[in-house]
Amino acid sequence: MEIINKQIGFGVAMQWRYATKKMNGEVVSEDKLHSILDSIRLSASSMGLQPFRVIVVSDIETRKRLQPAAFGQQQIIGCSHLLVFAVQDPLELSHVNHLVELMASTRNVALESLSGYKTMLEKYIQNKSPEGLFHWASKQAYIALGTGMAAAALEQVDSTPMEGFNPDSFDEILDLHAIGLKSVVLLALGYRDIANDPNANKQKVRIPANEFFIWR
Amino acid sequence: MEIINKQIGFGVAMQWRYATKKMNGEVVSEDKLHSILDSIRLSASSMGLQPFRVIVVSDIETRKRLQPAAFGQQQIIGCSHLLVFAVQDPLELSHVNHLVELMASTRNVALESLSGYKTMLEKYIQNKSPEGLFHWASKQAYIALGTGMAAAALEQVDSTPMEGFNPDSFDEILDLHAIGLKSVVLLALGYRDIANDPNANKQKVRIPANEFFIWR
Repeated sequence: MEIINKQIGFGVAMQWRYATKKMNGEVVSEDKLHSILDSIRLSASSMGLQPFRVIVVSDIETRKRLQPAAFGQQQIIGCSHLLVFAVQDPLELSHVNHLVELMASTRNVALESLSGYKTMLEKYIQNKSPEGLFHWASKQAYIALGTGMAAAALEQVDSTPMEGFNPDSFDEILDLHAIGLKSVVLLALGYRDIANDPNANKQKVRIPANEFFIWR
Repeated sequence: MEIINKQIGFGVAMQWRYATKKMNGEVVSEDKLHSILDSIRLSASSMGLQPFRVIVVSDIETRKRLQPAAFGQQQIIGCSHLLVFAVQDPLELSHVNHLVELMASTRNVALESLSGYKTMLEKYIQNKSPEGLFHWASKQAYIALGTGMAAAALEQVDSTPMEGFNPDSFDEILDLHAIGLKSVVLLALGYRDIANDPNANKQKVRIPANEFFIWR
């Protein structure tokens, strides 16, 4: 399989991206949006369970209602699409069933051939506390968050990850409780407002490689 | 700034990657390895704190010692480099100091100009329990894990994320406690052993887009 060498491109993209604090309202094209969303959906998760969903909020009225629950941050309104990563809470055995059925149909194999995998997943869930499952599911969502930021940067779309919001308020406004979801982290997609974002021209600060990596 | 359009490339790369269960021992080139590591280091983290480090284990003797603590998984030995993501535990105010000093020197600004940022970080840490900080730091490491898998896929390097290991044993073998770190997740980098990996030719299973995304 041939892939154009992305070595320089990805590094450049990772340098280019930053947590945009002011966005200019420009809309991300359908093509770019779906490319980013697809990468998020294809992200790896522990045992393949994908114990979370992504709410894509484009409606401006909804975003206006969400903004106060995110400390008034400008990018909630200034972005093009606001992604809300929300975990399945409580995580239930029915989610395992669902995945195993999907796997059987996708790979065209008998359900019975997946019984070992199913039992492993069920035991994993049964042995963890609700809180433990919540943290575990959140971490899986954060893998996808990382993928989403990488995908956005490659598309030259700005993205801002946000933990600073009130999950309960978000869940209420987006009616997530009714569908068994709990919001854990946000990703605003859009375009930087270079003239008004004080962060737009600041140099990236990262722990130096010789300190960040430990060789063994 | 010009970036070659990666839209098709990244999607293809995300489809191409899978959790490789058998690797063939081939070594990842220095160029590719450093490109992947650099992307991991450049990953976003909450408030920019990067509360984790990455241990890069290439030594085969060390990996042989680690393998039993990872349920004997083949890719611990079969990979080229094993990345161990480890969070700072306990997370301390000295880590904040360190970051603020790094920021001041990187951006060539006075330390005093960063006092608001510093106070915010300090309060955040002081208001969270040690366990809460551990979960929070772990999630930041998972963002970088997601970036690492994306970077590896773009380099056509296989990668296997692993939660199935004994963190205490890893910490002991790698002597992480002494440097204030606690391992949370692994990423094996290497090349698939197509003939012997039963997963190599299985179709990827993912929740369909119309179910995974919720539009508001």
